[in-house]
Amino acid sequence: MKFTARQIADQLNGVIEGSPDITVHTVCRIEEGTPGALTFLSNPKYQPYVYQTKASVILVSKKAVFTGAITPTLIRVDDPYQALAKLLTLVEKQPDRKGLEEMSYIHPEAELGDGVYVGAFAYIGKGVKIGNRVKIFPHVYISDDVVIGDDTHIYSGVKIHHQSHIGNHCILHSGVVIGGDGFGFAPGSGMNYSKIPQIGNVILEDHVEVGSNTTIDRATIGSTIIHQGVKLDNLIQVAHNVEIGANTVIAAQTGISGSTKIGKNCMIGGQVGIVGHLTIADGTRIAAQSGVGSSITRKGTTVQGSPAFDVIPYQKSYVVYRNLPAMLKRLEKLENMKLQKRGDG
Amino acid sequence: MKFTARQIADQLNGVIEGSPDITVHTVCRIEEGTPGALTFLSNPKYQPYVYQTKASVILVSKKAVFTGAITPTLIRVDDPYQALAKLLTLVEKQPDRKGLEEMSYIHPEAELGDGVYVGAFAYIGKGVKIGNRVKIFPHVYISDDVVIGDDTHIYSGVKIHHQSHIGNHCILHSGVVIGGDGFGFAPGSGMNYSKIPQIGNVILEDHVEVGSNTTIDRATIGSTIIHQGVKLDNLIQVAHNVEIGANTVIAAQTGISGSTKIGKNCMIGGQVGIVGHLTIADGTRIAAQSGVGSSITRKGTTVQGSPAFDVIPYQKSYVVYRNLPAMLKRLEKLENMKLQKRGDG
Amino acid sequence: MKFTARQIADQLNGVIEGSPDITVHTVCRIEEGTPGALTFLSNPKYQPYVYQTKASVILVSKKAVFTGAITPTLIRVDDPYQALAKLLTLVEKQPDRKGLEEMSYIHPEAELGDGVYVGAFAYIGKGVKIGNRVKIFPHVYISDDVVIGDDTHIYSGVKIHHQSHIGNHCILHSGVVIGGDGFGFAPGSGMNYSKIPQIGNVILEDHVEVGSNTTIDRATIGSTIIHQGVKLDNLIQVAHNVEIGANTVIAAQTGISGSTKIGKNCMIGGQVGIVGHLTIADGTRIAAQSGVGSSITRKGTTVQGSPAFDVIPYQKSYVVYRNLPAMLKRLEKLENMKLQKRGDG
Repeated sequence: MKFTARQIADQLNGVIEGSPDITVHTVCRIEEGTPGALTFLSNPKYQPYVYQTKASVILVSKKAVFTGAITPTLIRVDDPYQALAKLLTLVEKQPDRKGLEEMSYIHPEAELGDGVYVGAFAYIGKGVKIGNRVKIFPHVYISDDVVIGDDTHIYSGVKIHHQSHIGNHCILHSGVVIGGDGFGFAPGSGMNYSKIPQIGNVILEDHVEVGSNTTIDRATIGSTIIHQGVKLDNLIQVAHNVEIGANTVIAAQTGISGSTKIGKNCMIGGQVGIVGHLTIADGTRIAAQSGVGSSITRKGTTVQGSPAFDVIPYQKSYVVYRNLPAMLKRLEKLENMKLQKRGDG
Repeated sequence: MKFTARQIADQLNGVIEGSPDITVHTVCRIEEGTPGALTFLSNPKYQPYVYQTKASVILVSKKAVFTGAITPTLIRVDDPYQALAKLLTLVEKQPDRKGLEEMSYIHPEAELGDGVYVGAFAYIGKGVKIGNRVKIFPHVYISDDVVIGDDTHIYSGVKIHHQSHIGNHCILHSGVVIGGDGFGFAPGSGMNYSKIPQIGNVILEDHVEVGSNTTIDRATIGSTIIHQGVKLDNLIQVAHNVEIGANTVIAAQTGISGSTKIGKNCMIGGQVGIVGHLTIADGTRIAAQSGVGSSITRKGTTVQGSPAFDVIPYQKSYVVYRNLPAMLKRLEKLENMKLQKRGDG
Repeated sequence: MKFTARQIADQLNGVIEGSPDITVHTVCRIEEGTPGALTFLSNPKYQPYVYQTKASVILVSKKAVFTGAITPTLIRVDDPYQALAKLLTLVEKQPDRKGLEEMSYIHPEAELGDGVYVGAFAYIGKGVKIGNRVKIFPHVYISDDVVIGDDTHIYSGVKIHHQSHIGNHCILHSGVVIGGDGFGFAPGSGMNYSKIPQIGNVILEDHVEVGSNTTIDRATIGSTIIHQGVKLDNLIQVAHNVEIGANTVIAAQTGISGSTKIGKNCMIGGQVGIVGHLTIADGTRIAAQSGVGSSITRKGTTVQGSPAFDVIPYQKSYVVYRNLPAMLKRLEKLENMKLQKRGDG
């Protein structure tokens, strides 16, 4: 499959600088360009590669200014990254799966929409309702009374427990577990614990994406809710009764404890821990590996550390931390001076 | 399904204050009460909601004292949280699965007890022994020579490797891996590594619950042992030859390195890391995100930090840490005074 | 199955001290020795157990010097740990699975080598190529156009997405996800995000071992590459476009962000986080729970902390950190002296 610079520019409403007839057959990063490849310049930090890359075509911003000689053909677009995303969608070669493969289990009381794919060894329980054009890959488990919206993709090995609701245009990656029991125990008669039954459920609204092996527990009572447009990376833990606001993005291996409510448009780094029963304001940013131990009420706050506090004072403290032994020596020097003074006196 | 306050009080040996005829059809948290809902007051912090909740019935402690007017019917019980757990068990609507579904694989040399459920696409290997009333959900893998006690529930997608022993009344959530190889390598001839075969196994005693996607590795030699009543949350790593004492509770994403022995009745927070070959005393508490680098010998110790030490001094140090830049300025001021003094002299 | 010390020594080219006729039927750790057991002394820290163990035979180094009376038979070898690994391989009782089990799905356009095992409920997609003597356990998903080398073992529940390349002699443990989408989004028109299609793949070279429930994302463009001999523990996150150099070893629950390149022969502890777009030099060692926020250019560096810096100054700073409250008091004392001086003056 080959495309000319002209064909690509037409797709993207782009403006060509250089040969419109040069062809590309693959896509690469700008620092690894090879002849026949299309690449893009989005982050200005990579601008020097424009003059070196062996790629044939580069997507660049309409506003970009270059000072040296450039060999490849340029296509100027409003936003090179968005343009690339659009192009990649056109060339993506996902497995094209259709219809119902043999050896799947579909309960007679389940309802499937039009154009649904059900892979081999998928299990669809009693009372399940599945929308149109949903793709259910092999080894997916959908327990009783689950509801799934239109155009949602559920990759191999996802487990969705009873009564969960999954919206439209969601993507659940392999190994995701939705609606496992929350971690709730009441102290028993001795040192042991009694299990609190977890009778709530999980709700994912539309356009939610959940990364591989992430776990989202069902609510003890009520619902664990992931609002519209939330993007969760891999290996994240979302405990019972958590609520995550619309368009919040969370990086890998973060854990959110029970009943915490996270606002809209937050950005949370990897390996962050948030304790239970907190409220995190809209637009909060949390640096990777931070531990959040108290609610954040001011919108747009950025925090770091474990326990976390405002990022600027945190980083100032850390600079001093790195020099603590020297600071201790300075303190000792002052103490010795005092002593000498006293000795002198 | 509706219940009167009278019916609920009878189930719980509770004492009614208010109308015994009021009915409830759902359960909610006290801060979200709606008419027709049952709720409970366990944590005194939530007491103000007793006067505001629109719930119809509240479970409260026999000892609770209220000072204002309360609209809902109260049912007084010894322990509201325990009472709720008991009630929830009665109303829980788990999928009711029975018998052997088609398209499962059961080796002819496997033995199954009475009343066992085996879901579609479950795999039960050679020499496996399964107790009575065990539930094995779809996509579970039970390898050769595994032994499973009575009344244990194994949810969809759990993988149990050869020679593991699982006790009675255990619950394994989706994606749990029991008995994968421990991480053991010997330096090879060059910079490479040779795999040390992992010929031990994993033993889970009775009443152990393991959260979604948690991994428990088999021992190199001997057994990795999880004692009675242990509760593990999601995404926890338990390495080869670890031993976890009875009724210890561990929150999500914690990792325990090889050959470490954890005592009884410990409470370990989320995202904690414990290095290998340590001994952690009974009743130890470890704050979330701590890193434990040496053995803890005194029972009932609470530690925090990475590396962790006693929680009280840790928190005192952290208070100073937050003010390090100010402290540095104070030090500089003293130094300048000294210099000025010298300049004065 | 019993072996005499003589038979074991013959297998290992070892030298016997004590009875060559004593028999062993099991293997144990030296601190837990029982009669009839073989054990080994590798770490000198365990040397005192040599005089106490009830094991019958001990593998020890040719160079080891003992000062007390030893009851068990000794077998002296060059490297006791390596010798044990060799022996364990001989006695290991892995499930012996062969051929194609019923109820597996093998696409007619997939190619299988000789001596391949395919378990029940395994799924092998269109265009897949599998080498000789590969073992594919139940519930494995291998999507379209995946290539797998010879002698690789893929345990139950592994998911390998389209176009991934897996080398020879690799081991993938249960729950591993290879080639899930990278976490890539472009800001949308409002506060929402558009998905960047992830059209790259994942490449695992030869002799790579990947622990249970670890996730390795496909590249946005190009390849995520795990070089020869890399050993990854459980629950690790490897993001899109990461590259990990040959024979690097990474402990459990570590996360590596997008486009970071890690060198050869590195040792990375558990729960480490590494931010994106960094370069980590060959032979780097990173202490557990560290957070690496900038590239490491000097080979053989050891770092600790979050953010991480050189391990020696880090630990010196931490020693002062533990005594910060005392240090603050010393500062206050100096300040008071000054004040008193001034008062005196």
